[in-house]
Amino acid sequence: MTDSTPEENKRHAEKMAKVQTARAKMMAEKTVTKGLIIVHTGTGKGKSSSAFGMIMRCIGHGFPCALVQFIKGARVSADRQLLEDRFSDICQVYVMGEGFTWDTQDRERDVAAAGRAWDKAKELIRDPNNRMVLLDELNIALRYGYIDAQDVIDFLQAEKPHMTHVVITGRNAPDALIEMADLVTEMKEIKHPFRKQGIAAQAGVEF
Amino acid sequence: MTDSTPEENKRHAEKMAKVQTARAKMMAEKTVTKGLIIVHTGTGKGKSSSAFGMIMRCIGHGFPCALVQFIKGARVSADRQLLEDRFSDICQVYVMGEGFTWDTQDRERDVAAAGRAWDKAKELIRDPNNRMVLLDELNIALRYGYIDAQDVIDFLQAEKPHMTHVVITGRNAPDALIEMADLVTEMKEIKHPFRKQGIAAQAGVEF
Repeated sequence: MTDSTPEENKRHAEKMAKVQTARAKMMAEKTVTKGLIIVHTGTGKGKSSSAFGMIMRCIGHGFPCALVQFIKGARVSADRQLLEDRFSDICQVYVMGEGFTWDTQDRERDVAAAGRAWDKAKELIRDPNNRMVLLDELNIALRYGYIDAQDVIDFLQAEKPHMTHVVITGRNAPDALIEMADLVTEMKEIKHPFRKQGIAAQAGVEF
Repeated sequence: MTDSTPEENKRHAEKMAKVQTARAKMMAEKTVTKGLIIVHTGTGKGKSSSAFGMIMRCIGHGFPCALVQFIKGARVSADRQLLEDRFSDICQVYVMGEGFTWDTQDRERDVAAAGRAWDKAKELIRDPNNRMVLLDELNIALRYGYIDAQDVIDFLQAEKPHMTHVVITGRNAPDALIEMADLVTEMKEIKHPFRKQGIAAQAGVEF
């Protein structure tokens, strides 16, 4: 870039010193640690992949963790495969759904599969060894009424161990879940090449 | 959940069959494959972790890939460490920044570090073996003017191999970058426990 003048450099250093002080103050006030209920929702991309990223981060720290996939069971995704192939010693993986709900077209089968997934999820969350449990695409099962949102909320409030992080992904998170969650991010689609350019789903990006 | 009546099940199956048909039609029209320019921006969480998730997905597919971290150099993150420890055979990692810019308070040093990172990024992108190159927190370096946004845009348009995905993260993505990107997601903060509850940054969630 362009060279900076000494005056610009001085102003920059002063401004950054102020930012540093403000940040240090803010961080010093934030001292509570606890397991968070984290929701990734919205129609944009990145809900599941950022949750997978957090699981990888936990693995990097050596924290036992677990993943329950509620919907995408019929489709092998490379990241889940990687967990199963390389990290089965530290991350439990359960794939309970039977694929996208528009492919099964059988509501009773979907409800039964979702119920089994939720039972497994409760077992994994109750186990205090698990530092993070990812409930991938749970919001879709809630949206279709396969699992009752209030049951999920009641369970998390009553039984989630204090230090366990629970991450819930999927579009259309119920309002009551957002209300009780600690950390909620909406992934918002600004631009998507499926629509604009006729781009296919591609390995590494979508799966 | 509640039992479904036969009539409900029939309606559900019909509705899902329509969804399936519409989706199949949409997917059949999407046949183009090409390397995408992907931007994750916004003030919410998940910009870097979903990009890391995509890198893990590439690794799961056996695709060579690379990561350049523009800013967070001074801080070891567990996910980057995992890449270095377990996947150095398939993912190149370069950490060129010297920590948060408010910690260095030295504009010339920041500009020089960012320039070196951008040179390395160009080299990695030019290498057609790399199927995905992640430029983590590049937007911060653009925002502070350490690297010229137009230089980045011109380079990507002129020299990015057709099938290479380039993922750029960081808040405040420049408008011109959003304009030229294929896939843009805004991570929008709906609720954050730092502010509301005085929660500290925690291992596995933030780093």
